[in-house]
Amino acid sequence: MNDFVFCSPTKFVFGRDAIDQTGAELAAAGFGKVLLVYGQGSVVRSGLLDRVKATLDAAGVSYAEAGGARPNPDVSWVREAIEKARTEQVDGVLAIGGGSVIDAAKATAFGVPYQGDVWDFFVKKQPIEACLPIAVVLTIPAAGSEASSSCVISCDAENRKLGTNGDIFRPKLAIMDPRVTFTLPTYQTAAGVTDMIAHICERYFSGVGAVPVTDNIATGLIVALMEAAPRVLEQPDDYDARATIMWAGTLAHNDIAGCGRSLVPTARAGGWESHALEHELSAHHPEITHGAGLAVVMPAWMRYVWKSDPQRFLDFASDVFGIEPVEEEFCPRDEAIEDAVTAAIDELQAFFRSLGMPATLADFGLSPADIDPLLETLKASKGEPFGAFQKLTMEDARAIYLSMF
Amino acid sequence: MNDFVFCSPTKFVFGRDAIDQTGAELAAAGFGKVLLVYGQGSVVRSGLLDRVKATLDAAGVSYAEAGGARPNPDVSWVREAIEKARTEQVDGVLAIGGGSVIDAAKATAFGVPYQGDVWDFFVKKQPIEACLPIAVVLTIPAAGSEASSSCVISCDAENRKLGTNGDIFRPKLAIMDPRVTFTLPTYQTAAGVTDMIAHICERYFSGVGAVPVTDNIATGLIVALMEAAPRVLEQPDDYDARATIMWAGTLAHNDIAGCGRSLVPTARAGGWESHALEHELSAHHPEITHGAGLAVVMPAWMRYVWKSDPQRFLDFASDVFGIEPVEEEFCPRDEAIEDAVTAAIDELQAFFRSLGMPATLADFGLSPADIDPLLETLKASKGEPFGAFQKLTMEDARAIYLSMF
Repeated sequence: MNDFVFCSPTKFVFGRDAIDQTGAELAAAGFGKVLLVYGQGSVVRSGLLDRVKATLDAAGVSYAEAGGARPNPDVSWVREAIEKARTEQVDGVLAIGGGSVIDAAKATAFGVPYQGDVWDFFVKKQPIEACLPIAVVLTIPAAGSEASSSCVISCDAENRKLGTNGDIFRPKLAIMDPRVTFTLPTYQTAAGVTDMIAHICERYFSGVGAVPVTDNIATGLIVALMEAAPRVLEQPDDYDARATIMWAGTLAHNDIAGCGRSLVPTARAGGWESHALEHELSAHHPEITHGAGLAVVMPAWMRYVWKSDPQRFLDFASDVFGIEPVEEEFCPRDEAIEDAVTAAIDELQAFFRSLGMPATLADFGLSPADIDPLLETLKASKGEPFGAFQKLTMEDARAIYLSMF
Repeated sequence: MNDFVFCSPTKFVFGRDAIDQTGAELAAAGFGKVLLVYGQGSVVRSGLLDRVKATLDAAGVSYAEAGGARPNPDVSWVREAIEKARTEQVDGVLAIGGGSVIDAAKATAFGVPYQGDVWDFFVKKQPIEACLPIAVVLTIPAAGSEASSSCVISCDAENRKLGTNGDIFRPKLAIMDPRVTFTLPTYQTAAGVTDMIAHICERYFSGVGAVPVTDNIATGLIVALMEAAPRVLEQPDDYDARATIMWAGTLAHNDIAGCGRSLVPTARAGGWESHALEHELSAHHPEITHGAGLAVVMPAWMRYVWKSDPQRFLDFASDVFGIEPVEEEFCPRDEAIEDAVTAAIDELQAFFRSLGMPATLADFGLSPADIDPLLETLKASKGEPFGAFQKLTMEDARAIYLSMF
């Protein structure tokens, strides 16, 4: 087990009565006036925004509003929200939404105390040294941003989508009612579950050997997700299955599934290779949902790199799918291992497809000619080589992308 | 999944370099002067106390000292430490030790701001409303107190051992270096592992049905512990096995293994029946190590109550031991279930015995005549009936105790 630093300070208020406690929990945590950050209207239409506002009013927490954050939020939106937060002199930010809204809220929260341009933090020109406190009412379980140290923002003007990390902007409070996810479209639910499994796998395949406590948590989360996801697709208001997905999504990304798996104690575990490859896809093609992109990228990455550490993939095959290598007279050890690993990756991809996720880049309408522009920005974002499980050059990346057709 | 509130805000600095970061981490967290709380000299003899002091000096954190906290710390010690903390005007408490030392430090930390007697909090005369910040250098993995909301203190004068719970006294910082546990005696290591498994089981058998995410974490922790414990008994300086035990011990009791399993969202999951039964043993017979007592109590409790919810015990048998009920021509369903559950409890008890833990109360030199005094204080502490998995009267408790001979 490698050395690690882990702090997940978020207070989770989870369950059927959670929404109604929003105002009181904010007041108890010292929030006086918040900037309400939300997306493109679904929380307005569903009445959730009004429900939350009523709890704020009842608790004496005042607010200003910044709606309209889009999926893969653009930095220009964040700049406007920062201005609003300053003008309105809020002392905290309350996100009501999924990962994109929360990330927009996070960037706003650490943008406010900074005199320069918020994009500086994403191009690593500047470390984040101050941040308004953040609270979340989660509506889309997927990104895990309600407890994570991650924030991803796009810059359309530069065709880039960049992430930054910091414990300083982990939310103080997350309000999580699985019932608000009953009405999520099937595709979004499935993409969310895919994203969660990717968050776990990025840490599991971090280039560090077995870490039993962490690995058992990781595979336990995946097994729970794979059992719950088909149930919600069949019955969208299955409370326990929705709750399983919502809570697993948080633990997939608050770093409990990465403790001891990092090469640097204070850094997040994993090389985040699949995320890096996917981020270029959705940066260049904003119509691609992040989780759907991962459903295509992750198995392709696995097939390309597993030979770097077959034992890690055998552990995965065994603990998630119960698949063991079967050595026989006409199947020597090497082939048995390859068969087992391939079977596990096949099972994972089949699971994503069973949720309605795509399997190839052609499913997104892309062609091999679309790959070169991805490699240019990938190299600018990640450098070359990049990755932890196996170092990847741009030629490797090209081969992985091309294997997705 | 039942509603829950979960907040585990402790910052964990875990690994080979952790001790040397103590002072800097305390300074960064705002500690200016701490009361150093430690036990009966092992941290002095090992040189650990001096190592920690050196890091405090280097970081400009000053300190006063309160040594001599004993296992199952007595409230009279806590009263003296509170006076010392007040006289020395510390702004925080730093425990260096295991569960008893940490609990003594916690009671000191919430005793300081209170004008009355600290025992008031344990007899529930008073809620805890303020607390000095607490940090921990963990030396004995067992109680999980480095991150838990629990604090247990004895009162010799009353022959009582009482616990209190509150998020307000969860430590801000836990410094955890598995190497300081290399020299722990075998018996203490084994008792610690037993205590951890008990912490997980109390939550797992909380009277709530399956909660997949939480249950998979719980059984994953037990499996990791059962794999690591024999390794450290064989090779005390097996770093990875020691690290597994240390980290599993924290997660066994910071409530991540109880989310969604509580009957009341803000309360800890579980009825803590085994702990209640054991607490009376070590309150009346302070020579009994808490974990060793649990090794006797827990299987006896399981055998007495499993029929209240056989499915829960079948899940446990399957996920921890891979034991499934086998229905056959001459073995009807009911018998197959009983066989599977009994086999799992037998395996658990055999595991404890393999670690050198006792199996009967006679192993502690007790006789059936010693039971009645336990029931008197048990009833005073827990009321009647008590428990969550199955309500237990004092007659039930007597039967469980007597089954341990």
